[in-house]
Amino acid sequence: MNSRIRIALLQLLAREKKVNIHQKAEEYITEAANNGAKLAILPELFTTECHPPVFTEKKEDIPQGETCQLMSHLAQKHSMHIIAGSIAEKIRGSEKMKNTSAVFNPKGELVGKYTKMHSFDVDLGERMSIHESEWFEHGNKPLTFNTDVCKVGVGICIDLRFPEVSRYYTEQGCLLHVYLGAFSKERTGPAHWDVLLRARAIDNQVYVAACSPATDPTHHYVAWGHSAVVDPWGNIISQAEGEEALVYADLDMNYLKKVRGQLPVENIRRKDLYHLTYNW
Amino acid sequence: MNSRIRIALLQLLAREKKVNIHQKAEEYITEAANNGAKLAILPELFTTECHPPVFTEKKEDIPQGETCQLMSHLAQKHSMHIIAGSIAEKIRGSEKMKNTSAVFNPKGELVGKYTKMHSFDVDLGERMSIHESEWFEHGNKPLTFNTDVCKVGVGICIDLRFPEVSRYYTEQGCLLHVYLGAFSKERTGPAHWDVLLRARAIDNQVYVAACSPATDPTHHYVAWGHSAVVDPWGNIISQAEGEEALVYADLDMNYLKKVRGQLPVENIRRKDLYHLTYNW
Repeated sequence: MNSRIRIALLQLLAREKKVNIHQKAEEYITEAANNGAKLAILPELFTTECHPPVFTEKKEDIPQGETCQLMSHLAQKHSMHIIAGSIAEKIRGSEKMKNTSAVFNPKGELVGKYTKMHSFDVDLGERMSIHESEWFEHGNKPLTFNTDVCKVGVGICIDLRFPEVSRYYTEQGCLLHVYLGAFSKERTGPAHWDVLLRARAIDNQVYVAACSPATDPTHHYVAWGHSAVVDPWGNIISQAEGEEALVYADLDMNYLKKVRGQLPVENIRRKDLYHLTYNW
Repeated sequence: MNSRIRIALLQLLAREKKVNIHQKAEEYITEAANNGAKLAILPELFTTECHPPVFTEKKEDIPQGETCQLMSHLAQKHSMHIIAGSIAEKIRGSEKMKNTSAVFNPKGELVGKYTKMHSFDVDLGERMSIHESEWFEHGNKPLTFNTDVCKVGVGICIDLRFPEVSRYYTEQGCLLHVYLGAFSKERTGPAHWDVLLRARAIDNQVYVAACSPATDPTHHYVAWGHSAVVDPWGNIISQAEGEEALVYADLDMNYLKKVRGQLPVENIRRKDLYHLTYNW
C-alpha cells in the first residue's frame, strides 16, 4: 500500500448561479488533478450558500442531480476520489431537505452518502440565530471509504464538536478525518475552528482536513473560510485565509505511524474503564 | 448558590529541599487567600520534580504525610479548598508508588484522592523516553467534589488526552475541570498544552484550569509551565509563561450558562446514536 497521498481542498465562493459554481469547481478539480491530487474535497453546501431561501431553491437529488453527475464525471475523468462537499438534498414527499455529502471513487461510482448527524440549532446573535433542524432532517449513520493510501471518515460542520464521532472513525481505522464545514466569520470560526481541528487530530493521531466555503461578506451567513489540513501531531500543514483558494497537502502515513509509535495513545487509553457504544 | 469564584493556580518551582517548596507553597496560598481565592491548585508532583530518583526519594503517605498535613492545615486556616497538586504516594509493601492528588475542603478535611488513570509511557526522544508505569501504579477512579459555586472534576497530565474523562465529568455536572500537568518544554508542551485545554473547555462548555510546575532548565525533565485557565467559550483568560507564578482567574457560572444557552451542545448531542459507558 502506498504511504503518501496529495489531497486538495476547494475553498469555493458560493456564486449566485449554480452554473458558475460548477465551472469554478471543475477548473479547480482539473488543476488539482494535474498537480497530482488523488482526493478532492469540496465545502459544505457549496452550490447554494448557507441560507435557507438559497438552499431551498437550489436543492437537488443525490446522486441523480446535476452537481453529483458533474462530480462523478470529474472523478472518473481524473481517476481520483471526490468528496462532493455537501448539497441540500431533496427528500421525496417532504418540504425538508438533508445536508448530505456524496463521495465518488476514481471510477466515478458513488461510494456512499453522508448526511449531517447533528443539527446546528443555536442562538448566537442577530444573524446567528439559526435552527437548522427546521430545514434539514439529520442523518443517523457515519460514512467511511477506502483510498489506496488510507481509510477516510466524513463529518459535516458541527459534527466536529462531538469527539464521539472522531473516536468512532479512529476505531474503524480511518487515518484521515474529513470535515466539510462552514463555521461563521462572526462567532465560531475565529474562536473554535482551528482549535477543534487540531484537537481532533491530536487526540486521534490522524490527519484532519476541513473544507469551508470562502468568505463572502455580502452573504447573509458569512463563512469563516480558513480551510485547513492538520497533521497527526496537531500542526496545521496547509491553510487558506478567507479568499477563494485551492489548498494542497501531502499526507504521509509513515509519519502518522511514527507519531503513534512515539506517543502510543491507543495503548495508554483505559479501554477497561470506559468505552463508547454506537447504535447505527 | 453563589455564581462566582476566584481560583488561584500555584505554578511552583520544584526546589531541591522539600521544606523550601512547602515554604513557597504556604506563601503563595496565603497570598491567594488574602486576595479572595477560594480554591488553590498546585501542580503535578510539585514536591519532587518529575524524575524517578527524585520522587522515589521524596515519596509520602497520603494523607498522613507532611505535605498533606500542611495542605490540610492551610485549607482550614484560610477556609478554602486546596487541590494539593499530586504527590508520589507510598504504597505499603511495594516499591511502586501512585501519582495521587489529595483534595481538602475549607474545614481541612480530606475530600478525596485521585490517582492518575493513564500512564505516560512514551518514546519521544532522548530525555523523553519515559515509562511512567515502571514507577507508578495507575488509578481506576475519577474524583469529583463540590464547592459553594460548582462541582469540580480532577485529572492529571496525560488524562487530558482522553475526551472520555472530561465527558464523564461533564455528565456528572462538573463545571470546572482541573488538570495537574507537567507537559514537556521540549515536545508536548508547545505542541499540545493550550490546544487540548481549550478543546476540552469548548467541547464541554466548562471552565478548565491546568496547573504545571514552573520551567527549570536544570531539571532532567523540563516542565512547560504555562498554567492556564480557559473559559467555556475556549478563551484563555489567565496564563503564566515558564516562570514561578501565582495565576488568578475569576470564574462566573452565569457566563457558562449563557454560553450553553447560545450554543446548546448537550441538546444537539445525539445520545440516541452513541454513548459512553464507564466501569468504575
